[in-house]
Amino acid sequence: MSEPSTAAVHGSELLLQLFVMLAAAKLLAEGFSRLRQPAVVGEILAGVLIGPSLLGWVQPSPVSHLLAELGVMFLLFSVGLEIKPAAILRVGRAALLVAMLGVLVPFGSGFVLMEAFGGSRIESLFTGTALVATSVGISARILAEMGLLETRSARIILGAAVIDDILGLLVLAVVSATARGAVNVAEIAVTAVLAVAFVAAVGVLVPRLLTRGGVHIGRLAIASPYFVVSLLLCFGLALAASWVGVAAIIGAFLAGMALAEALEVHRDVHQQVRGVTELLVPYFLVEIGMQLKLEALEQSYTLWLAAAMTAVAVVSKLAGCGLGAAALGWRGALQVGAGMVPRGEVGIVVAQIGLAAGVVTDDLFAAVLAMAVATTLIAPPMIRPLFRR
Amino acid sequence: MSEPSTAAVHGSELLLQLFVMLAAAKLLAEGFSRLRQPAVVGEILAGVLIGPSLLGWVQPSPVSHLLAELGVMFLLFSVGLEIKPAAILRVGRAALLVAMLGVLVPFGSGFVLMEAFGGSRIESLFTGTALVATSVGISARILAEMGLLETRSARIILGAAVIDDILGLLVLAVVSATARGAVNVAEIAVTAVLAVAFVAAVGVLVPRLLTRGGVHIGRLAIASPYFVVSLLLCFGLALAASWVGVAAIIGAFLAGMALAEALEVHRDVHQQVRGVTELLVPYFLVEIGMQLKLEALEQSYTLWLAAAMTAVAVVSKLAGCGLGAAALGWRGALQVGAGMVPRGEVGIVVAQIGLAAGVVTDDLFAAVLAMAVATTLIAPPMIRPLFRR
Repeated sequence: MSEPSTAAVHGSELLLQLFVMLAAAKLLAEGFSRLRQPAVVGEILAGVLIGPSLLGWVQPSPVSHLLAELGVMFLLFSVGLEIKPAAILRVGRAALLVAMLGVLVPFGSGFVLMEAFGGSRIESLFTGTALVATSVGISARILAEMGLLETRSARIILGAAVIDDILGLLVLAVVSATARGAVNVAEIAVTAVLAVAFVAAVGVLVPRLLTRGGVHIGRLAIASPYFVVSLLLCFGLALAASWVGVAAIIGAFLAGMALAEALEVHRDVHQQVRGVTELLVPYFLVEIGMQLKLEALEQSYTLWLAAAMTAVAVVSKLAGCGLGAAALGWRGALQVGAGMVPRGEVGIVVAQIGLAAGVVTDDLFAAVLAMAVATTLIAPPMIRPLFRR
Repeated sequence: MSEPSTAAVHGSELLLQLFVMLAAAKLLAEGFSRLRQPAVVGEILAGVLIGPSLLGWVQPSPVSHLLAELGVMFLLFSVGLEIKPAAILRVGRAALLVAMLGVLVPFGSGFVLMEAFGGSRIESLFTGTALVATSVGISARILAEMGLLETRSARIILGAAVIDDILGLLVLAVVSATARGAVNVAEIAVTAVLAVAFVAAVGVLVPRLLTRGGVHIGRLAIASPYFVVSLLLCFGLALAASWVGVAAIIGAFLAGMALAEALEVHRDVHQQVRGVTELLVPYFLVEIGMQLKLEALEQSYTLWLAAAMTAVAVVSKLAGCGLGAAALGWRGALQVGAGMVPRGEVGIVVAQIGLAAGVVTDDLFAAVLAMAVATTLIAPPMIRPLFRR
C-alpha cells in the first residue's frame, strides 16, 4: 500500500514478532523432541536465541508480556482440568510438609549465600525470598506431556506448589515490610488468613456449586456454553486470587480443578482449552528465555553470584522438598524435589519488587534473573529420567 | 499483598479489563440469543455499553486492540477452514461481478453524499473510499453460527469479500496519492499486480503443497503437530498479505481455506481453533462497540451526516452487490447484498489514514466511525431472516 496508516504498520510489525516467536519456539521444540530432550527447554532456548541476548530479533514488550501471562494462566488452568480436587486433598498432608520445608531450606540457604557474597542484611533477605517461590508451570507442562499428572508425586508437586505460593506470599510481605522499616504483624496476619481462606473456599465450594449447577450451563443459548463458562471462571478466579494477593495462576489452577469433575464428559472443551494453551504457552516459554541478560553476566562477580545462586537454588529445593517427601522413598522424594526446582517468573517478580524499592542492586537483579532461567532449564532434564518408568 | 510491584498491579487491572469485556459480551450474547436476535449484535452492544460512550468501565487500549486483531484474524481463519478452494472458484465469476459493482456503487454514492454535505473534493473522495471495503467478519460469523457457510450465497459473499478487499486497496492507493497531490500510476499498478498475484498464488499453490505434504506433518515430534502447523500458516500468510498490502485477515482466510482439505479428518484441530476463536472473537466485537463515540454525535451536523452516510452505505452495497448477484433471483441477490453491508474496522482504518493526512475533519471521522458501527449492527438482523429457510 502506498500510504499505510501507522496502525497498519504497527499491526504488521506485531504480527511479525508473534510469528517469529512462535516459529522459533516450535522449530527448537521439534529439534529437542527429536533428540529426546524436553520440548520446553527448546522453547525457552528459542527465547534466549532470538531475544536481546543473542540475535536481538525480538525484544520483550508489553505484548509479549501479556501473551506470556495469559499463556501461563491457561497452562495452569489446563493442568487443573486434569486433576480432581479429591486427588489433591488426599495428598494434602504430604504436600504441606513438602511446601514448608521447601520454603524454609531455600530461604535460609539464599540468606546465608548472599551474606557470604557480602550483601547487606536486606539484600540477603530478598535473595532468600527470591529462592522461595516455585514456578510450577514448567514441571506441570513436562508431567502433562509425559502423561504423568495422575501419579502421587505429580499431585504432591501440584498441591505443594499451591501452598508454596501462599507461604512465599507471606515471606515476601514480611521482607517487603522489613525493607520499609516496619513489620506490621496485623497486616501480615490478614494477608495470611485471606490467602488460606480463598484457597479453601475455592477448592471446596466452587466444585460443589459446579457439580450441582452443571446442568444449567448446558441450557444456555450461546454457542459453546461449557467452554465460555470455563473461560469466565478461569479469568474470574485468577482475578480474585490476584486481589487476595495469591498469584493469578493459582486462581486459574483452582478454576481448572473445580471444573475437572463438572466437565469430565466434555471432550470438546478439553480440545478447546488445548487450542488456547498450544497457541499461548510458547509465548510464556520464549518470554522466560528473553529475560536472560547474558551481557550482565560478563562481570565476574555477577557471573559467580548467578552460578552460586543457581546451585543453591537447585540443591536447597531438592533437599528441602525431598526431605518433606521422604515417606515416598528415595525416588519419590527426588521426583518431588526436582519438580519444585524451577523458579521461573516468580523469583523475577520478587527481584523486581526489591529493585523498585531500591534495596536490590542491578548485579543482584541480573543474578536472580539468570538463576530463574537456569533453574527452569535445569529442571526438565532432571524430572524426565526420574519419572520415566 | 502489602507492597505489590507495579507489574503485578498492572497485571491484575489488565485481567479485570479482560474479564469485564468477556463477561459483558457473553451476558449480552446470552440475552440476545434468548430473544432470538443475533449474538454478535449483543456482543457489539456490550462494547458500546461498557466502553467510553456509556459506562466507561473499559477503554480501548493497545491490549484490547491486539486481542481484537487476533480475534478477527482467527475468525476469518476458522471460516476458511470450513470452505474448500474449489467451492470458491466455482462462484468466481459471480463473486467478481458482485465485488466490482459493490465497490463502484458505494464509492460513487459516498462521493455524491459528501459533496451534498458541502465537503471538499478530497473529503468526498475519502468518504467514497470509506464506504467501499466490506468487513466480512460479521457476516461470516453469523453464517457460521447458522451453519450456512456451504450455501451458494455464502460462498459468493466470501469470494467477493476477497476481491472487494483488493479493489478497496487500489481505490485507497489512488485516493491517498491524490491527497498527496500526485497519482503515481506505476506504483498503483505494482500494488494491483502484487495483490492479485498473492491471492492467486496462495489460493492455488498452498492447498496443493499441503495436500502433498500433509503426511509429513503427522511425522513431527512436537505435540499437536497439525494445530501448530495451522497456527504458523495462519500467522505466516496473514503477515505475507499485510506485506503485499492486502488485509491480514484475507491472508488468514486463505490459510484456513488452504488447510480445509488437508485437515478434513482432524476433528481435534477444528475444536482447537474453535477454542482460540471463542476466546478472542468477543474482544473483536466489543472493540467495535467501544469505537463508537456517542458524544461526537451530539452536534446535529455530525449526527445527520452519520445517519445519511449509514443509509447510503446500506442502500449502495445492497443495490450494487445485489445487482451483481441478480442471477441468483431476488432472494439470493438480497442475501448477497445484505452480507456485504458491514464495514467494521476497514472503513475506520480508511478514515484514520485521512485524519493522519490532515484531509479529513474530526466531524467526518466521527461520522465514518458511527457508520462503520451502525452498518455492522444493521446487517445481522437483515441477514438472518433472508437466510432462514
